[in-house]
Order: sequence, then C-alpha cells, then structure tokens
Amino acid sequence: MSSSGSSTSLSTQVQRLTSVASHIRNNRYKVVVCRNLGPDVMPLLEERSELDLVVWPEDRACDRAWLLENIQGAAGVIVMLTDKVNPELLDKAGPSLRVVSTMSVGYEHVDLKAAAQRGLKVGYTPDVLTDAVADLSVMLALMAGRNGGIGTSVVQNGHATYRFVLKWQNYSWAPFGFCGPQLSTTAASPTRKIGFLGFGRIAQATLARLVPFGITHCLYSSNPSSPPNHARDAELSRKYNLQAVEKASVDEVARESDVLFVLAPGGADTYHLVNEALLKKMKKTSIIVNASRGTLVDSDALAKALKEGWIWGAGLDVVEGEPHVPIDHPLVKEPRCVIVPHIASATLETRRDMATRAAQNLIAAILGVQMPAQVDLAGFS
Amino acid sequence: MSSSGSSTSLSTQVQRLTSVASHIRNNRYKVVVCRNLGPDVMPLLEERSELDLVVWPEDRACDRAWLLENIQGAAGVIVMLTDKVNPELLDKAGPSLRVVSTMSVGYEHVDLKAAAQRGLKVGYTPDVLTDAVADLSVMLALMAGRNGGIGTSVVQNGHATYRFVLKWQNYSWAPFGFCGPQLSTTAASPTRKIGFLGFGRIAQATLARLVPFGITHCLYSSNPSSPPNHARDAELSRKYNLQAVEKASVDEVARESDVLFVLAPGGADTYHLVNEALLKKMKKTSIIVNASRGTLVDSDALAKALKEGWIWGAGLDVVEGEPHVPIDHPLVKEPRCVIVPHIASATLETRRDMATRAAQNLIAAILGVQMPAQVDLAGFS
Repeated sequence: MSSSGSSTSLSTQVQRLTSVASHIRNNRYKVVVCRNLGPDVMPLLEERSELDLVVWPEDRACDRAWLLENIQGAAGVIVMLTDKVNPELLDKAGPSLRVVSTMSVGYEHVDLKAAAQRGLKVGYTPDVLTDAVADLSVMLALMAGRNGGIGTSVVQNGHATYRFVLKWQNYSWAPFGFCGPQLSTTAASPTRKIGFLGFGRIAQATLARLVPFGITHCLYSSNPSSPPNHARDAELSRKYNLQAVEKASVDEVARESDVLFVLAPGGADTYHLVNEALLKKMKKTSIIVNASRGTLVDSDALAKALKEGWIWGAGLDVVEGEPHVPIDHPLVKEPRCVIVPHIASATLETRRDMATRAAQNLIAAILGVQMPAQVDLAGFS
Repeated sequence: MSSSGSSTSLSTQVQRLTSVASHIRNNRYKVVVCRNLGPDVMPLLEERSELDLVVWPEDRACDRAWLLENIQGAAGVIVMLTDKVNPELLDKAGPSLRVVSTMSVGYEHVDLKAAAQRGLKVGYTPDVLTDAVADLSVMLALMAGRNGGIGTSVVQNGHATYRFVLKWQNYSWAPFGFCGPQLSTTAASPTRKIGFLGFGRIAQATLARLVPFGITHCLYSSNPSSPPNHARDAELSRKYNLQAVEKASVDEVARESDVLFVLAPGGADTYHLVNEALLKKMKKTSIIVNASRGTLVDSDALAKALKEGWIWGAGLDVVEGEPHVPIDHPLVKEPRCVIVPHIASATLETRRDMATRAAQNLIAAILGVQMPAQVDLAGFS
C-alpha cells in the first residue's frame, strides 16, 4: 500500500488543505455515507466528533442526484459497488475531498486515475470476505453438480421442462434420476482435478475446503506476468496431501479440470476469459463456477456450452450486466445453470466486517493516519 | 452379518430347495429386476447364464400388479425404495425365493420379519453412498444459511414475498441484503459448533468436510444404548484439531449447535425426534439439515419454527410423506427452507456403485456364496 498523496505537488496540497478547512462545517469534516451501515457499524462513525455525517436515508441504492448534491465540500465518502465514482462526482466534491472508501473488495466503480490525479486516498475491504466467498464457491460447485437448482424448483414451483412441469409429487423415482457428477472421489472414480483461473486468497481458501472431498490435483492459471511459485505450490501439495498443485496454461486448466473455479479480478485483462474456445476444451462432465466478476464469462458462450452438452453444469454468483438479468436471459433458461444474485460475501459476519473496515478506512484517512486497507494508486500518479 | 438361514429347520430347507429346483426355467434361476439398472450394471446380470432375467420395461416405478405376477417362482428380486416387500409379495413369489436385494441403504420398505420367517436373505447397499450423502449435507447446510433457495428463485422466477415479486433486475443492492449466518468462522466470530443427531459413517464424513470451514466443536447424540466412544472421539478431536468431539444429550446438542445435522436411521425409535420442544431449544441463528429420513422431523413444528424465527433456516433432502409434498406444503412455503427431492445419493458414480452392489448381492445369494452386504436378520429368526 503506498501513500497516494506523496507525489502531489506542494501547491496542490496547500490549495487542498485550505479548501478542506473552509469546508469544515462547525469545525467538523463533512462525510457522505451512501448507505446506512447498520446498527453495529454506524456508531463507529457517529461517535467521532470530528465528523459531520450525511447519510442516504433510504433502504435502496443512493440516488445519483442526491449524491452529487451532498458530496459538495465533503472530506470523505463511503460508497458501495452501486455508486460510480467518476470525475463528475469528484469534481462536484471539490478540493475538500480526501478519501473515497468503498465497502467492497472490487473497485471497478472507482476511477482510480481520476482519484490519483486529485491526490485522493482510496480504501477498500480485501481479506475480510475471503471465507464467505470461498464458502459460496463450494456451495455453487455442489449445486451445479447435484442439480441443486432443478431440485429446489421441482419441489417449490414445479420445474418446467419442454414437455411438462415436473413436481416432486409426480416424480417417479429412478435409479439415475437427478444424478450428476460427484464432487467427492469414490473407490471406482479416485481422481478429482480442481482448476482455478486466478489463484489468490479466495481460490486458495476454496481449495482448502475441497481437500476432505478427496480431491487429488489442483491446477491453476494466474497473471501471466507473475512467475510460478514452486515453493508455495510444493507446500500446499504436501499440506493437503495432493498429487499436484501446479501452475498451467489456461488451456490446460480448462482441459483437465473436473471443477473449474473462476476467481480472478475483473477488468480488460480478463474480459471473456471464459469463451467458446475455452468451454469447448472442457470435459463433458465438468462444472464451472464463477464467483468473481460477470465480465470474465461470455454468457452466450456458456449458455451454448450448457445447451449442447460441452460441459455438465455451471454455478454463477455473477453474470455480465447484472442485475439486469431477466428471467428469459439465456443462462437463466438453462436448467443446469445455477445462479444466485451476487451474494458471495453476503453473510452477517462478513458484511459487518466489510462495513467496519470501510468506516475505519475513512476515519483513518481523514485523521491522517495509516488506513487499514488502501488501494495502491502508485501506477496512476 | 449373520447367515439368516442358519436357524431355519432342516425340513424347511429341503422343502425350499425342492421348490427352487422345480422353478428353475430352462435350468436357470428366475430373477425379477424392478428397474433397469443402466448400461454399466445390467451386463453383470445379463452375462450370468445361471439367471433368467425379467426386467420391468418402463422408465418409472414398477407397477405392483406386474411385480405380483412376475415374482411367481422367482429365486431373487432386485427392488428399489419404491417397491414394498411385504408378506403379500413374498407369498406370491412362493418357496423358490432366496433373496431380496434392495438398491438402497435403507430397508424400511422390506418386512424383515416376514423375510426372516421365510429363510430369505436380504441385501442392501451401505457404505457406497456415504460420500454422496455427506456432500449433499454440506450443500444443504450452505444453502440454508446463505439464502441459496431464495437466491436462485429471485433470479429464476422472481421470489414472491407477501408484498411483491422480487426479481434480480429490480433488486437494489443493500449492505445486508440476502445475508445469513456464515458457516466459516471469522476473526470476530471464531467459534462454530456442529451437532449431529446420529453419528455414523455419514455424519463422520460430513464432519470431515466441515473442518476446513474452521469449525471448532462437534457434539453428537446417538443410540442411547450405545456407550460413548471416548477413544474414537479423542482421536477425531486430535486429527481435526477441534476443541471438542463429545457425545451429549439430544437437548444439549439442540441448544449448542450452530448447524444441526439429522443423520440417524428412520423408524419408530426416531419418529419426530425433531419436534417443537427440540426446535425451541435451538439458537435463533442456527441451521438444521435433514438428509436421513423424513419421519425424524415433525414438518409442522419445523414450519412453525421457521415462521416464528426460532431458528434461522433448514435444508431438507427428505420430508415426511414424500414425494407427496405439494407446492402449498407448509415447509415449501417457508422462504428459509431449502428442499431438494431426496437426491442425497444421486450421483452418477454412487448410483452406479449402488446398482452394482445390488446386483452382486443378488448373484452371491443365488450362487450360495457370501453376499457383499447382507442385512442382519438374527433378531427376527
């Protein structure tokens, strides 16, 4: 984490500090909070006498017009993934602004270059959501393999097939009814290869959870510019008693994986990393899980792969263009595609931790002390 | 496993053997198979020249009338959970019958006393489904905690609330939207107690899978007549680095568990073990999972517990009276109740293994050699 303000010119700093001073209302720093952070976390902010809080009062995403009006003269703002932090917003805030603190691990909604140019600090919430996302990744892998989506819909509404609506009460048990590939190994099927596109904290936490299911191999691809970490891989392989933990090409990971987890950052570098060419290389019995960003997976290609049986199933926490995913979306219509509405970090414990971290980042930046988690803007300054 | 025929009187045996001989058609043993076991397993039976196979030809549960007609003079029968093996059926078969082989781990559908009285052998398929059921138990625990049911229905059909239908495209992201209790521990919430009602193979396989989620305690209650196994528990606790693995009263298990797994046999001894009194003792944030038999849980009590918030959520593979579980069933209507249609063993690998075991049991009994897995009928003879 670098101090993003270090390269700002002295005159800009003086101008900014003068401006901040003039914008302190009642000797307090104005802070805009784009969403109520709940009864456990709001007091962290409310009890700070240095802060003059302006909180979006409704239980829905913050109105843009409200934010643009209220951001004026603010020293800090706490935003969500739903709030776009662009030059328009930063200009409205004016030179008083010191910090943008987002309650998320991703920061695609924050124009980092514009923030760096204005000498701002940007806080985010990594690490605290690792376990919640790994939990959900395991859930999606199981649901996609085990007909978790169709199963619940058969019971709940009846599952519409092209011929009829299947309800549990009309279901005639069959030896291979509702069967899918088993995540756990068996005596007759003793190998399971797990693949990861992206092998950061969340991927490694997911790997740890899969070990007792009897998995035998872990293959991953990651940022091409980062060299293989043989020592770390050997240690993981030893610790988990796996036959291999290895960095491989994206193609090889696709070809070999029984379950392929997409857990890489979004952005231009990973746009449609999962496309027709990759899906065609996968095993017919394989499962794909995406709990990172919708942009990594080409939805049309995935729908085609499921319809034509190139792969067995998919479990998605994210879909490109979400939440504009209507019920006639090609992926929603695929029976072997399980989709949940971007809830990977949605646990009471984790969201409380994320909100706490967002508040702490903001307070630290305003008080001029070390932020618990600051986005490195060095590349932009 | 005891040889159930050992106490049959000599005259009965002679009578039976004579009868079998008279019923061999073309010098072969007639065997009725109540369901096609698939292309991987049927050859095991078809290639046996000693057998004369009669296979139910349709892709649905075997008609009772067809079974009663075809069972006459059979030496063996392969049945499913859906086929009731009662005195009526056994009498129709006549004294030629040697073996009833069920493709299931449970045998509530087989009248064991009637089978013992006739000197029959009964085969079943334990062990091979342990991992598949443990996998599904973990899936249900995650789904019940993480709004897996509501999540998929919001995306798929829109989730009907009492005020409106919530669809993903209309969902306004909220810091605590779709949140539930996290299965994994966190720094601020470092304890997870997992409870088991029944602590056999499946429960222990489920426990193993939960270890990397950071669970800290395991409490279980089991058959009151079986003494605590302190050595085994100490070994599990050491192996998994848990603070405790302990046998406790049903009440204590209910009171302490963050996730309570019901994994005990069905039958009169465990009927409605989970009732209002037990559910009232549980934590408000707790999850209950049933992947054993529907009869263990009082559906009305569970629906009340969910509606009134005594517990957080439930994940059910089985429901009393299934598959007669209409979409207006009180449990189906509870949004925090995730139900799948009795698919705990439904994986391609496991069902193939179960079908193989059912065929092997039948063949062994007919050839008079040791069956791979025989129900102990000693108590009935």
